[in-house]
Amino acid sequence: MDNYFLDRRTVRQYTDRQVSDELLCEIVLEASHAPTTGNMQLYSVIATRDADIKRRLAPAHFGQPQVENCSVLLTVCADFNRFVLWCEQRGAEPGYDNLQSLVTAALDAAIFAQQLCTVAEMRGLGTCYLGTTTYNAPQIAEVLGLPERVLPVATISLGYPANPGVEVGRLPVDAILHSETYHNYSPADIDRLYSEKEAREDSKAFVEENGKETLAQVFTDVRYAKPANEAFSKVLLDYVLKAYPFK
Amino acid sequence: MDNYFLDRRTVRQYTDRQVSDELLCEIVLEASHAPTTGNMQLYSVIATRDADIKRRLAPAHFGQPQVENCSVLLTVCADFNRFVLWCEQRGAEPGYDNLQSLVTAALDAAIFAQQLCTVAEMRGLGTCYLGTTTYNAPQIAEVLGLPERVLPVATISLGYPANPGVEVGRLPVDAILHSETYHNYSPADIDRLYSEKEAREDSKAFVEENGKETLAQVFTDVRYAKPANEAFSKVLLDYVLKAYPFK
Repeated sequence: MDNYFLDRRTVRQYTDRQVSDELLCEIVLEASHAPTTGNMQLYSVIATRDADIKRRLAPAHFGQPQVENCSVLLTVCADFNRFVLWCEQRGAEPGYDNLQSLVTAALDAAIFAQQLCTVAEMRGLGTCYLGTTTYNAPQIAEVLGLPERVLPVATISLGYPANPGVEVGRLPVDAILHSETYHNYSPADIDRLYSEKEAREDSKAFVEENGKETLAQVFTDVRYAKPANEAFSKVLLDYVLKAYPFK
Repeated sequence: MDNYFLDRRTVRQYTDRQVSDELLCEIVLEASHAPTTGNMQLYSVIATRDADIKRRLAPAHFGQPQVENCSVLLTVCADFNRFVLWCEQRGAEPGYDNLQSLVTAALDAAIFAQQLCTVAEMRGLGTCYLGTTTYNAPQIAEVLGLPERVLPVATISLGYPANPGVEVGRLPVDAILHSETYHNYSPADIDRLYSEKEAREDSKAFVEENGKETLAQVFTDVRYAKPANEAFSKVLLDYVLKAYPFK
């Protein structure tokens, strides 16, 4: 039986067919009814189609081809700017230059982003999150002209699928679902919960191609390595402290 | 025409009917196919039904009644614990005690949480996010026994709806959608974009009940006031620095 949620896949290649402005507006409208803290809607989405602007964004996403090959590149931002402008214009003193407010806006943005992906995919479009957005937030902010209090948190490439995408598998439900309280994992739990993932042919190929001994080493040594994580953490922290007038 | 996404509403009251374990597992399974960074699934969800544990969680959520009245309380956490245990058990040196990794896990968790809400609502259940989770993260962590590297980011009450929920409205699409780059808001934009929201009867009642002059003041002075935001920011920052072995 078809089940959209179980069957959905990330799509990284798109046809030349463009997503119309009308369709994009409908998708954003539907996604805007996702839950939001106190109905504040602390997010914005920037829809970039212009080839030159996409080209300038590409290095911030480490040249991932879907930046330039998608129909629309969507940069979803945590946005307290609009709300603060509204407050100031209405004789209200905003108190949102602090960590909780930034976290609230970032969660609002992520929830909106995911609803947008679901809406788009259920209409037959393909989407892909670019996990590089917070790595290079300052570059993205510069190209897109983001003002203070606007932080890019997720970038989504959108278009008509050129292929159905690849099935990648997930951990079993009992890896992520805890009953009543958190149950920490024993070594035997870890072996059991990761065994299917490790036994997959694509995982084995990954280990082989990268000259590693275990799949975990592909993550720690190649894909999400400590020196890069630490360097980009510093970039993000410096940027947040600069772009957010924290008090 | 019915459109789930446009028509969805937050539901805060539930009937006595319980969400079965089977249904909960199906929902979590479907939600687990939501996008996740590098297929790392950096989240966990704790499903609490026990009345005593709910009672102990209630103060952390400022006594919001749905904590105790829902069928299942779901605490969604950014979780690098499981992944780090796996790495350590596979001869891989994890490098995830840094800001980028925490942000990555928090986004993974928020994306999963929103997919879980969508799946549950499309099956006829009611959900409500409790925006209090990051305010009182240390209390929640203690009650649920969260280890290092596990941060609660969203709490969702789940149950069979006792009512259809309330329609609250949203800003027009052009308030949140920017074309090509970010277009900052002029005072006339702000007036136009917030006019419908401000003209709603429930907004006017809100202003009246709280003895304020503008709707914005209800947010800044009552609902999301600066002193509380700043105090809870300090709590969160101290907790993150303590619970995460940042390097």
